[in-house]
Amino acid sequence: MSWLDEIKWDEKGLVPVIAQDQESGRILMFAYANREAVALTAEKNTAHYWTRSRQKLWHKGEESGHFQKVSAIQFDCDGDVLIYQIEQVGGIACHTGRPSCFFRTLIDGEWVITDAVLKDPTQIYASKP
Amino acid sequence: MSWLDEIKWDEKGLVPVIAQDQESGRILMFAYANREAVALTAEKNTAHYWTRSRQKLWHKGEESGHFQKVSAIQFDCDGDVLIYQIEQVGGIACHTGRPSCFFRTLIDGEWVITDAVLKDPTQIYASKP
Repeated sequence: MSWLDEIKWDEKGLVPVIAQDQESGRILMFAYANREAVALTAEKNTAHYWTRSRQKLWHKGEESGHFQKVSAIQFDCDGDVLIYQIEQVGGIACHTGRPSCFFRTLIDGEWVITDAVLKDPTQIYASKP
Repeated sequence: MSWLDEIKWDEKGLVPVIAQDQESGRILMFAYANREAVALTAEKNTAHYWTRSRQKLWHKGEESGHFQKVSAIQFDCDGDVLIYQIEQVGGIACHTGRPSCFFRTLIDGEWVITDAVLKDPTQIYASKP
């Protein structure tokens, strides 16, 4: 039996994945992966996901250049969630140009932005000549 | 508008929550919360979830004593995932008696247990006299 068979895929064939900075421990991203994405991640040591909005395999960084080098994959007690331990190329995981997608914190009953934009998203996703 | 209205609840009225140790940065648990659970967490600074298996509000620690003191709640760019920054009472988040639910790591194509049990689960959940 493959290690992939031990993962409890949801009714859509997906598993939630948390991407965590292997050095700082910061949680950078949360996304979903299908079987092919997880297999490719383990084989190539670069994070792959399944994008639910675009309904396709997503090699993180393929458009932005912000690839994620994967040093370890962890698995929870229920077998239905993964962690990718990563090094974030370019230091930007979020499509808003911030280090992490978790850049808002609840302060006095309001979501306050607690992280600066490091790079303008229009620059990140500018089409290459 | 309440900060709770900004959360994108899924079709079951739930949001995924990652519980992270506020000191070490270790990811301890992954679960779901409904609106009531998130509101109670923010109000009482102790983690509440919605248990999908038992279909009820779950004040983490109510049976085990392993409560989670919440120092911050973070929110992602898409507005559909939360992080609870926590102090784990008793140092055990997992029902298996381990510090974290993520105690397995993929090594050479196998899930290897990389964390010891700190307390026998039968002791954790022993019925009180």
